[in-house]
Amino acid sequence: MIRVSIAGGTGYTAGELLRILLRHPQVEIESVISSTSVGMPVAETHRDLLGETGLLFSETFDRPDVIFLCLGHGRSRAFLQEKPLPEGCKIIDLGNDFRNDPHFDGKAFCFGLCELNREKIRKADYVANPGCFATSIMLALLPLAADDLLKEEIHVHAITGSTGAGKKPGETTHFSYRDNNISVYKPFTHQHLEEIGHTLRAAGSNHLPQINFVPMRGDFTRGIFASVYTKWLGSISEKEMAERYKEYYASSPFVFVSDKSISLKEVVNSNKALLHIEFHNGYIHITSIIDNLVKGASGQAVQNMNLMFGLEESAGLKLKGSAF
Amino acid sequence: MIRVSIAGGTGYTAGELLRILLRHPQVEIESVISSTSVGMPVAETHRDLLGETGLLFSETFDRPDVIFLCLGHGRSRAFLQEKPLPEGCKIIDLGNDFRNDPHFDGKAFCFGLCELNREKIRKADYVANPGCFATSIMLALLPLAADDLLKEEIHVHAITGSTGAGKKPGETTHFSYRDNNISVYKPFTHQHLEEIGHTLRAAGSNHLPQINFVPMRGDFTRGIFASVYTKWLGSISEKEMAERYKEYYASSPFVFVSDKSISLKEVVNSNKALLHIEFHNGYIHITSIIDNLVKGASGQAVQNMNLMFGLEESAGLKLKGSAF
Amino acid sequence: MIRVSIAGGTGYTAGELLRILLRHPQVEIESVISSTSVGMPVAETHRDLLGETGLLFSETFDRPDVIFLCLGHGRSRAFLQEKPLPEGCKIIDLGNDFRNDPHFDGKAFCFGLCELNREKIRKADYVANPGCFATSIMLALLPLAADDLLKEEIHVHAITGSTGAGKKPGETTHFSYRDNNISVYKPFTHQHLEEIGHTLRAAGSNHLPQINFVPMRGDFTRGIFASVYTKWLGSISEKEMAERYKEYYASSPFVFVSDKSISLKEVVNSNKALLHIEFHNGYIHITSIIDNLVKGASGQAVQNMNLMFGLEESAGLKLKGSAF
Amino acid sequence: MIRVSIAGGTGYTAGELLRILLRHPQVEIESVISSTSVGMPVAETHRDLLGETGLLFSETFDRPDVIFLCLGHGRSRAFLQEKPLPEGCKIIDLGNDFRNDPHFDGKAFCFGLCELNREKIRKADYVANPGCFATSIMLALLPLAADDLLKEEIHVHAITGSTGAGKKPGETTHFSYRDNNISVYKPFTHQHLEEIGHTLRAAGSNHLPQINFVPMRGDFTRGIFASVYTKWLGSISEKEMAERYKEYYASSPFVFVSDKSISLKEVVNSNKALLHIEFHNGYIHITSIIDNLVKGASGQAVQNMNLMFGLEESAGLKLKGSAF
Repeated sequence: MIRVSIAGGTGYTAGELLRILLRHPQVEIESVISSTSVGMPVAETHRDLLGETGLLFSETFDRPDVIFLCLGHGRSRAFLQEKPLPEGCKIIDLGNDFRNDPHFDGKAFCFGLCELNREKIRKADYVANPGCFATSIMLALLPLAADDLLKEEIHVHAITGSTGAGKKPGETTHFSYRDNNISVYKPFTHQHLEEIGHTLRAAGSNHLPQINFVPMRGDFTRGIFASVYTKWLGSISEKEMAERYKEYYASSPFVFVSDKSISLKEVVNSNKALLHIEFHNGYIHITSIIDNLVKGASGQAVQNMNLMFGLEESAGLKLKGSAF
Repeated sequence: MIRVSIAGGTGYTAGELLRILLRHPQVEIESVISSTSVGMPVAETHRDLLGETGLLFSETFDRPDVIFLCLGHGRSRAFLQEKPLPEGCKIIDLGNDFRNDPHFDGKAFCFGLCELNREKIRKADYVANPGCFATSIMLALLPLAADDLLKEEIHVHAITGSTGAGKKPGETTHFSYRDNNISVYKPFTHQHLEEIGHTLRAAGSNHLPQINFVPMRGDFTRGIFASVYTKWLGSISEKEMAERYKEYYASSPFVFVSDKSISLKEVVNSNKALLHIEFHNGYIHITSIIDNLVKGASGQAVQNMNLMFGLEESAGLKLKGSAF
Repeated sequence: MIRVSIAGGTGYTAGELLRILLRHPQVEIESVISSTSVGMPVAETHRDLLGETGLLFSETFDRPDVIFLCLGHGRSRAFLQEKPLPEGCKIIDLGNDFRNDPHFDGKAFCFGLCELNREKIRKADYVANPGCFATSIMLALLPLAADDLLKEEIHVHAITGSTGAGKKPGETTHFSYRDNNISVYKPFTHQHLEEIGHTLRAAGSNHLPQINFVPMRGDFTRGIFASVYTKWLGSISEKEMAERYKEYYASSPFVFVSDKSISLKEVVNSNKALLHIEFHNGYIHITSIIDNLVKGASGQAVQNMNLMFGLEESAGLKLKGSAF
Repeated sequence: MIRVSIAGGTGYTAGELLRILLRHPQVEIESVISSTSVGMPVAETHRDLLGETGLLFSETFDRPDVIFLCLGHGRSRAFLQEKPLPEGCKIIDLGNDFRNDPHFDGKAFCFGLCELNREKIRKADYVANPGCFATSIMLALLPLAADDLLKEEIHVHAITGSTGAGKKPGETTHFSYRDNNISVYKPFTHQHLEEIGHTLRAAGSNHLPQINFVPMRGDFTRGIFASVYTKWLGSISEKEMAERYKEYYASSPFVFVSDKSISLKEVVNSNKALLHIEFHNGYIHITSIIDNLVKGASGQAVQNMNLMFGLEESAGLKLKGSAF
C-alpha cells in the first residue's frame, strides 16, 4: 500500500483527492494536513464523506510515500521549506508553483501531463500537475503539435465551472451572481497560457503561434468546455484527422475522440477527456471537455501517482460519471 | 414628485427598490445612502443600472419625503437614532426592527401587509415592511384567518431563492454549494413565525393554532414557493373556498387565485402573489408564490409608499415578469 | 461472473445501471435490450459511456443469470409474458408493477428495500425495486415503524430532481420551464404512498396513521430531499433517538445518520442515504436524502442483485460522489 | 391607441410581446391568433399573465394597425398568403423569412436593426426583425463597420439561453440534459451569418472579412453573451475606441458601453444591450450582451413598432431588469 499524505486538506482539490483515494485499491491515506482544522473530522469539512472515513485533520505528515500539495497557487514552496519531507517521499503539486519553474531545492519537477510525459513521469519523484484550462486545451492540440502542424494563430474560448475558483466565497462565486450568468475574465492574459506554450513546444511545435484565449465563467459547478480552432493548411481530411487523433491517444486510457458532437456532462465526475473534431471554412475546430476537479486536478494527480509508483495508469480512476 | 431616500443603498433590496423607483412616474430619488461607498456611482454597484441613472452614493439624505431603510435586520433603530430625519419624513423599514415591536421614539410602525392593513397604511407615516417568507405564508392564510377558520395545526414548507440570504457571500450561498442543492434551515424556529402569528390574529384568528414551518434553501435566485395545509373542518367545497379567496382579494391588485397548479416563475420579477387551493384527505392545501425581492421586499415597500402618499396602489408596480 | 441482461436499455435507469455494472467486479453484461435501437452502440445513446463499452443494443437476451427490467411503469408484466426467461433467471424489476401486487405467473416478488428485507432478498429470485420517493421516505421512518412508534399523522414534503421524470421530454422537464422553478404535483395522492404504507406496516407499525405527502419538482437533475415529521409522544431525547437510528442502520452499509444538518449534494452520485433528526415543538423532524437514480433506482437494484447472488452487499457500489 | 394583432400567439416570442405590450401606454391588443388554441384564455398558455389579461386566442385578426408575426422561421410567407391583411396594416416579422430576402408580394421589408436603420424604419410599413445572435454580434461590430475598419477575420463565440430554441421540447432542451451542461452547435455555419454579413456591409464595411462564429448552448434560460474579436490595425487607443463606440450609440436609447467587464444578467429582462471593449495582443475584443427574448426578439420588435408609428423609441420598453 502506498502511504499518502494530503496537504491543504480542506480545499476542493483535496476533497476530490480524498473521494478518489479512499476507493483506490493500493492506497492508504496516512494524513490530511490542515493548519486551520487540526483534530477535526475530515468528513465534517467534506460532508459527502460521512460514513466513508474517520480520518481527522492533522498538523503534519508522518512518513508518507507521497504527498499531494493542495495548498493554493504559490504556497507550495513555502510549505516545502517549512516542513522537510522524509527521505524518498515523492511530491505531486496541484498548485502552479512548479509548472513553469520546475527547479527547487535540488529537485526538478516533471510536468505531469500523462498523455505527453508518460515515460518521464514513471521515473519522476516530483511532478507538477497541470492546470485545468491548460489540460483541456493541451489535449485538444497535442496531436497537432506532435506533427508540428501548429503554424497559424490559435483561437480558444473555454468555459469553466465554479469549483475552478476554489472554496473561498466571493462576488463571482456568489450563487445570486453566478446562477444563469456568463462572464469573461482575464481575456488573452490567463496564466495557463505559459504552461500551454512550453508544453506544446515540448510536444514538437517548433514555431508555436500566438494563442488567443478567452476564459469564461460558467453557471455550473464542474467541468471545462474548450472550443479551439486554427487555420488548417494540411491536406488530410476531417475523418483522417480524427483517426490521427485516435491513434495519438490510443495508449492513453482516458482520452477519447468522439465522432459526434460532445456536451460537457459526458465527462463530469470522470477522469476522461473527450475530443471532437470538425473542419469548417479552412479551419480545424476541436472541442475538448474534462471535469476540472478530476482530469483537470485531482484525478490527473492520481493518474500521475499511478505512473510514479508503477501501478496501472487507471488504477482507482474508473469512476462512474454522473451524466446528469 | 415624492422625494425618496434609500438607506443601506448597496444591498439587494436597495438595488431592487432602485430598479422599481427609477421607473415610478411620481418619484424622484434624492439620495442613496451608503456609508461604505460615498461618492461612487450607484450603477457601479448595481451593474444592471448602467445607462439608467447617474446617481452617486451619498453619506446622508437631504430633505426626503420618505426614507426606505434597507439596512439589514436590527440596524434600523441605530440609524434613526444617529440620523434625525427632517420633519414630516415618512419611514418604510424593510428590516425586521419594527415588525413585532412597533414602538420607537414616539412613533408607531404600522405592519405593512397591504392586503390586510390597506386603510391603516393610508394613514400611516411609519411602516414596517413584512418579511418575505411571512408575506407568502400570510397571504395563503389571511382569508381563513379572517373567517376564524384556523383551528387545527398548520403545516408549512417554503423554499426560498438565494437573494433572500443577502449580498454577503458565505458557505450556503456559494455557487459550488448551492447549485443543484437543497437544504433545510431553522426548521420550526424561523423568526418570521412571530409576525405571521400576530398578523393572523389581527386578521381575525381567535385561537390561532401552532404553525409548523420548515424553511428550505432552493437553488434559484428569486422567489418563494410556500406549501401550506391545515385540516379542513368546514362544509364548503374546494370550489367555494377558491371563490371565497377570490372575493377576499378582489380589491387587492396583486393577489390572484389560480384555478390551476402554479409554478414559481409565474410571479418572478413581478409584484404579484399567486395562490392555488386544493382539498385532499381532509386538508385544505394552499400553494402560494411571490418574488422575494419584489412582493417579498422592495415591491411591497413601494406598494406601501403608494398607499401612504395617496397614489394608486399599483403605481410603478405593473412590472413585466420574466416568466423564464 | 454474473451474466446480466438489461431490458428497456435506452432509459435513464438503464443508463445508470450500465454506469454501475460496467465497473462491477463480478458482473458481465450480456445484453442491453431495446426494441427501438437494435444494433446501435449503447454508447451512442448513453453518450458518457464513450470509451467504456462497445456493447450494441440487442433485440433480446441470451442466457442471463439475472435480468433488470427498466421498462417504464406498468410494462414489466407484458414483457415477461412476451419473452419467457431461461430457467433460473432471476428478475429485478425497476418499475412499479410488482411493488404492491407481487404475484405473477407463479412467482412472488420480494419488495427490495434492502434495509428492511435483507434476509428475504438473499433468498429471493424475484425482486421489486422500491420507488425513489418511497425509498427516501421509508428510510426516514423505518426505525420508528420497527418500534411501532408511528401513531400520529405523518407530514412529508419531498422534492425530486428532473431525472425522476424520465427521458421523454415534456412541458415540466423543458429547461426553459424548469430552470429556477419549483412546483408541486400530485399532492396527497402520489402513487408511492401505497408501497410506503405496506412497507411500514411490514416493518412493525400496527396502526399506521395517515401520511400527508406533498411531492415537489425541483430545478436540479439528481436527488430527492425529503422532510418528514410527526408528533413525538415518546420519552427519549433527540440524541437518544439519533442513536436508535444509528443502531437500526448499523448493519446497513449505505444508510448513515448525520449529527449535523444535511444538504442534498452530500449523496448525489452515490448509493448512500443520509438522515438527520431533530426534535422541535413536540415533533420529531427527519430529513432524508438519496440520489434518485442510484439509491432510488439503479444502485438499489444492484444492491439487491448483490444480496440475491450472495455477494458483498456493497460490491460495485462504493461510488465516488460528485459533491458539487 | 395602436391596434395590435399577434400571430403565432402560443410561442415564447408571442408571450414576451404580450408581457411588453400589455404595459405599453399606446397599444391595444386586438387579437392573439393561434390555430391550435382558438377560444382558450391567453393566460392559460402564458401562465404568468394571470390577472393581467382576459384575452382569448382567436382564429384571425379584426382590423389591426400592425401585426406581429411570431410563427416560427419560414412560416410567415404562407401566413400572409392565406390571410390577406386589411389595407394599411403594417407588419413586423419576428421570423427569418424576410431578413435576407426582403421582397414579397410587392412589399419590401426593412431590416429592423434600429441602431442602424432608425430613419428607414420610421418610414417603413414592413419590418424584418433581426435574429437574436445576429443582434448581439452586429451591435458589437457596427461602429467598426461604419468606419470601414473590419479588415481581418472576425472571431466570435456566443452562448445562448434555452428560450432561443423555442417552446417545443426536445433532447437539447430537456432539463436533465441541459442543466449544468454546455455544448456547441452549427459551428461556423449558423444561419445568422447571412444577415450579419449584409448588415455590416450596409453599415459601411466594404471588404467584410470572413466571420468565424461558434454558437454555444448555455444552461440558462434568457440571454446571449457574445465574445467577438478581430485584429486591430488602427492607431487609436482602447479608451478612444470606447469613446468612439459611445458616440456611435449616443442616440440609441438601449445600447451602452461599459467601462468595466460585463456579465449577462446585467441586461436580462431588459431591452438593453451592453458592450465592453478591451485591446489585447493586437486584437480588439468586444463582449456584447442582450436578452434574447427582449432586445433579441420581442423588445426589438416593439422598438421597431415605436419607430414605425412615430412614438418615442423607448415607449413601453423601460423594463425593470431582473438582475438576479
